[in-house]
Amino acid sequence: MIEPLRFEDGALLILDQRALPGEERWIRCQSPAQVAECIRTLAVRGAPAIGIAAAYGMALAGQDRGAAGELLRSARPTAVNLGWAVDRMLAAQDPLECARRLHRDQEQADRRLAGLGAQRFEPGDRALTHCNTGPLATAGYGTAGGVLRAAWESGRLEQVWVGETRPLDQGTRLTTYELERAGIPFRLVTDSSAGTLMARGLVDRIVVGADRIAANGDVANKVGTYPLAVLAARHEVPFYVAAPVSTLDPATPDGAAIPIEERDPSELAGGVPAVNFAFDVTPAELVTAIVTEAGVLEPPYEESIAGVAAG
Amino acid sequence: MIEPLRFEDGALLILDQRALPGEERWIRCQSPAQVAECIRTLAVRGAPAIGIAAAYGMALAGQDRGAAGELLRSARPTAVNLGWAVDRMLAAQDPLECARRLHRDQEQADRRLAGLGAQRFEPGDRALTHCNTGPLATAGYGTAGGVLRAAWESGRLEQVWVGETRPLDQGTRLTTYELERAGIPFRLVTDSSAGTLMARGLVDRIVVGADRIAANGDVANKVGTYPLAVLAARHEVPFYVAAPVSTLDPATPDGAAIPIEERDPSELAGGVPAVNFAFDVTPAELVTAIVTEAGVLEPPYEESIAGVAAG
Repeated sequence: MIEPLRFEDGALLILDQRALPGEERWIRCQSPAQVAECIRTLAVRGAPAIGIAAAYGMALAGQDRGAAGELLRSARPTAVNLGWAVDRMLAAQDPLECARRLHRDQEQADRRLAGLGAQRFEPGDRALTHCNTGPLATAGYGTAGGVLRAAWESGRLEQVWVGETRPLDQGTRLTTYELERAGIPFRLVTDSSAGTLMARGLVDRIVVGADRIAANGDVANKVGTYPLAVLAARHEVPFYVAAPVSTLDPATPDGAAIPIEERDPSELAGGVPAVNFAFDVTPAELVTAIVTEAGVLEPPYEESIAGVAAG
Repeated sequence: MIEPLRFEDGALLILDQRALPGEERWIRCQSPAQVAECIRTLAVRGAPAIGIAAAYGMALAGQDRGAAGELLRSARPTAVNLGWAVDRMLAAQDPLECARRLHRDQEQADRRLAGLGAQRFEPGDRALTHCNTGPLATAGYGTAGGVLRAAWESGRLEQVWVGETRPLDQGTRLTTYELERAGIPFRLVTDSSAGTLMARGLVDRIVVGADRIAANGDVANKVGTYPLAVLAARHEVPFYVAAPVSTLDPATPDGAAIPIEERDPSELAGGVPAVNFAFDVTPAELVTAIVTEAGVLEPPYEESIAGVAAG
């Protein structure tokens, strides 16, 4: 089983995802600052996983949870799961117990939403996904990656198309690593190939994760998600977003209000001027359904999101 | 000045584009087979440039032009310029003189179409392009790259957005190399960033090249072109295709009839199953205009293409 993080002997062990798939190297964190640094530098990434890492980071804070919370909350700007986890930890009586419970709850949420999402699949389906949303990006099961796994295990998935996910190649490095271990057939393609695949009728469904979902259903996710959604609409391919309720952000009215991280241009290619958006925003109108552990949400999203986010 | 090939002392010298931008290495070809190998392995690439290389390859054939023609024609399947150049050379009285004239004519065609395309630009324009279509890909001036250069020189261009162009990174390696030398401001982005750029209103125009344009105006070009065209339509960004008349293929009725090359999956990432489409097809309905040396063609393309291809 693949897991991105583990709490053992008073320390948070983080599987360094920058070194995958070549090397399985663990980083031992004993302070909130070390955890924040791992989040900032992408040793751990994926909205649900960084939320859980932040929770354990808070459990390592000792008396000064306020300062640790600010540090962890600001490690990356887009995923709302960071602030969500910090808020829960600030209110906790027993911090380590709270972090462990949050970890367990998020894994159960993934298993539940994965099962719900898989019910939308039909035998023979070829699904396309983007970035990495399996065990590595989450509490250990997966959001969009969990849906694919549950669909595979229930005989409703034939093959996965995996986009490279430039510039950090999470698809190439991490998603193929997970799918190979799970025995799920896949083919890697360039991010630019999605249009050709859909035009040729080779994609039955798209399923992606999310870093933050606004009150109106606009979805921030890895850059490249929005073009996939636009192509999906043109080709009438169902476009699903799979995310736990902790990724819903009713306090953010719409996509325009979601902070989109720009990362170091050197992630693309050394030496030439570049702009490196890490995420993009997919307007709610292009999203067929949002698969959460509290149910599969459908338009109008203002209502369906308010229903489960409040619940 | 950058030039992708040169005929000197009885041999065709090909600038090895696989080694750029790190190294300027020339390959000396003295037979059609060597030229075909350079085309097949992408030492020289870009539809107009491989047409010209094939012409010189034919000039190296001696008596057996028929076999050389078959070899060169089949070196790559999508660009129609290969077959176009071979056909002209089969009919030539003086092969080397014919190849030189074809080379010169194609450069003049580029300069003319570049000027026509630039007239569509307005001061302050930020243009997005894909793959490489400047001097390296052509007779030495550029198709889409030529339009950008002419727009820059006439004060109608502020900046170019360059897509990486996975998997072989022609944008990163070749287009930024050309733009830097021409002094044209640019920013590199991942191919997946085009949606974000357009959604933020940062793209005024898109201009790309072509490998083959069917009788109905459907355009085969580097994979990733079609998603750009779909996004451009959504955001009402003009989408131009720049290509010499030699790229028009009235004998191919539409995009479905254009052979799309699939290259070795190992171009993506070693070891995992992959599919590597080199090109895609953009339906004519998404193309604002096709810029050729014989004029700027507009819909209905059946008529405008027949007009110049016959003329």
